[in-house]
Amino acid sequence: MSAEIISVGTELLLGNILNSNAQFLAQQLAELGIPHYFQTVVGDNPDRLKRAIAGASDRSNLLIFTGGLGPTPDDLTTETIAAFFATPLVEKPEIIEDIAQKFAERGRQMTDNNRKQALLPEGAEMLYNPVGSAPGMIWQPRPNLTILTFPGVPSEMRIMWQHIAVPYLKTRGWGQATIASRTLRFWGISESMLAETVSSFFDLQNPTVAPYANFGEVKLRVSAKAASREAAYALIAPVEKELRRLAGIDCYGADEDSLASVVGELLTATQSTLSIAESCTGGGLGQMLTAVSGSSAFFMGGIISYDNAVKEQLLGVESQTLEQVGAVSAIVAEQMASGVRSRLNTTWGLSITGIAGPDGGTTAKPVGLVYIGLAAADNVTSFEFRFGDRGRDWVRHVSACSALDQLRRQIVSSLSNLRGS
Amino acid sequence: MSAEIISVGTELLLGNILNSNAQFLAQQLAELGIPHYFQTVVGDNPDRLKRAIAGASDRSNLLIFTGGLGPTPDDLTTETIAAFFATPLVEKPEIIEDIAQKFAERGRQMTDNNRKQALLPEGAEMLYNPVGSAPGMIWQPRPNLTILTFPGVPSEMRIMWQHIAVPYLKTRGWGQATIASRTLRFWGISESMLAETVSSFFDLQNPTVAPYANFGEVKLRVSAKAASREAAYALIAPVEKELRRLAGIDCYGADEDSLASVVGELLTATQSTLSIAESCTGGGLGQMLTAVSGSSAFFMGGIISYDNAVKEQLLGVESQTLEQVGAVSAIVAEQMASGVRSRLNTTWGLSITGIAGPDGGTTAKPVGLVYIGLAAADNVTSFEFRFGDRGRDWVRHVSACSALDQLRRQIVSSLSNLRGS
Repeated sequence: MSAEIISVGTELLLGNILNSNAQFLAQQLAELGIPHYFQTVVGDNPDRLKRAIAGASDRSNLLIFTGGLGPTPDDLTTETIAAFFATPLVEKPEIIEDIAQKFAERGRQMTDNNRKQALLPEGAEMLYNPVGSAPGMIWQPRPNLTILTFPGVPSEMRIMWQHIAVPYLKTRGWGQATIASRTLRFWGISESMLAETVSSFFDLQNPTVAPYANFGEVKLRVSAKAASREAAYALIAPVEKELRRLAGIDCYGADEDSLASVVGELLTATQSTLSIAESCTGGGLGQMLTAVSGSSAFFMGGIISYDNAVKEQLLGVESQTLEQVGAVSAIVAEQMASGVRSRLNTTWGLSITGIAGPDGGTTAKPVGLVYIGLAAADNVTSFEFRFGDRGRDWVRHVSACSALDQLRRQIVSSLSNLRGS
Repeated sequence: MSAEIISVGTELLLGNILNSNAQFLAQQLAELGIPHYFQTVVGDNPDRLKRAIAGASDRSNLLIFTGGLGPTPDDLTTETIAAFFATPLVEKPEIIEDIAQKFAERGRQMTDNNRKQALLPEGAEMLYNPVGSAPGMIWQPRPNLTILTFPGVPSEMRIMWQHIAVPYLKTRGWGQATIASRTLRFWGISESMLAETVSSFFDLQNPTVAPYANFGEVKLRVSAKAASREAAYALIAPVEKELRRLAGIDCYGADEDSLASVVGELLTATQSTLSIAESCTGGGLGQMLTAVSGSSAFFMGGIISYDNAVKEQLLGVESQTLEQVGAVSAIVAEQMASGVRSRLNTTWGLSITGIAGPDGGTTAKPVGLVYIGLAAADNVTSFEFRFGDRGRDWVRHVSACSALDQLRRQIVSSLSNLRGS
């Protein structure tokens, strides 16, 4: 029993996109304990796709296709699979109905092109796409061979995989051994520093512990293999506990947690509210906060004070200060935080001002210099960061994360002081 | 004559890493005009690697391997290729010398493991690695079949490809032609609708035209093959011109353009400025605008009015209106746009209010209902969108894009009116 991933799309052969679908599916197959020995990439070409199907169906029992399910003439994954197994295509009324309904909801007309998406090989079932118009299929063209097809759009493919394909596969006996994992998340510590602190854990066999880092965040993935999910998590739990103890406040959460969701929980737990003032991030901090569903409970809003006039008029930053020390300074960060806090009448005010680059840096104030301001009722502080000239997107991203992290540390430490006293 | 990429490494099958090497090589092959129809990923396993070599050598003339050249026992790409073509391995003194010298420079001793890296099939030449210890090889195991091997470390592979493999291939008659491409970008039209409008172009052979869609954006890629880059672009130009004519205002740009960068250019060209008011996007629109380097020339700032109190106090939205028709309404969008425009004293005011979900939807106002407000000196309008319940991230993303798109259309049409009058 083994699976094989076949990615269909000329854009992959031209190198226009990275094959992130194959990585996602590979991780998923590993977690389900389904062996997987080959991946193929092939263009939107019927003859070559048939060659790929021939090779794959000869050596694997579960073929997972992504791409080529759209409405245009170069989308021909479904019809080529049907042709390879000499099976006629039939129109599925449930797909027509689904597409028509989705188009109606968006006030659009279904075109003849979309009708093509309702054709599946005889005997195949629709693999429902809750998001886009292109459904996939589940088909057993012959005994001991299962075919799943997914659209190439990663967000659609992932939802269909997790909500429909995985439960289907489990009922068919695939994925019985389970690999479960837990990802611990860290902010404010480098990968090498964290690796030194927890180096003894990297020799463990089950669970294993592996470090990852991207965009300023460090992660430790703890993975265990066992007969059930519960048994796997039971192996993970004591290791996670010890890792958290060693890392202390640098560990901000796990798995689906984000700095924003953790800050949201802390604000909710302390019945406090937040407003923000952003300069170089231009809305990125607000976007992170409001990416959390239900964020209206703790986040009131903010001011994007990109221009200095907005800093003065809407936040009350002093023009004299701007002239004397410039917009990228500790004192302006503090005035921004205090200003937005008092105007929006919130418990906390959080601000960011910095130089994201590529232009605007000087020797005294280089690209990557960022100040975070944090205002409470009785206190206002600021924090200086030097993130370096690592690209505008990078500086903006880590600035917003660091702002959230400073607020997180402040609330966590006030909570422990409370408990300690 | 066609090439094939074979990526060797169990870490790819486990999904631990993205196959960025395959994307890089695919782009390079496209630029060189070397046809390339298949990619394979296979683990560090001799039997399965032989299967992959069998399939690839049967259909392609240039096999490009990455990975499995290191010193450890699980690195077995070279020996497996040699075994497949029944050729003995021989030790290359020049490789031994090179590795010994590199180790000496770093003050390290060469180990017996490294000796393995000096073994190549009889008749193969070393493909020099100027960076790391693992060299690759160039080999013709039989007429009309060339094999190149590269280490899996992307930085080493890329240098070896560009400095050694490409010149080698060119002297052997590969890569005489060039494929260049141009991606046209569209907003406000569905993939199927656009495909119908330009369907006759999909049959072109050189250049080819192919549609793509993701996150609400539709793209047409025009690719041409010719003897030089200039000749390829000369083939693309008339097709691009005709596609732009057919698509009209729905085509907003090409290649690296974004809706925000195009809006920025239009604002700069018309010497006008922008301020924004965001509710459901919570800063996402501001983030898009400020992702454009130099955006401070046209973007003054904005107000994230997440809470209704902020809409009233900072934007002047009437509390009576909020009570009567609710925050997600055309009139509130208009009041937000006018409010931010007058407070920040800009040419344009742009606003977004909507229901991003997953909660908060009703029958009358479902998840995905979004209003965009656009205010100028003498006029304020609004636009209603129903994006559907396709996930919070999706709704927020397409809302911000649609807001930029409405402003773009407004400026473009005022410019053409100006020209027309």
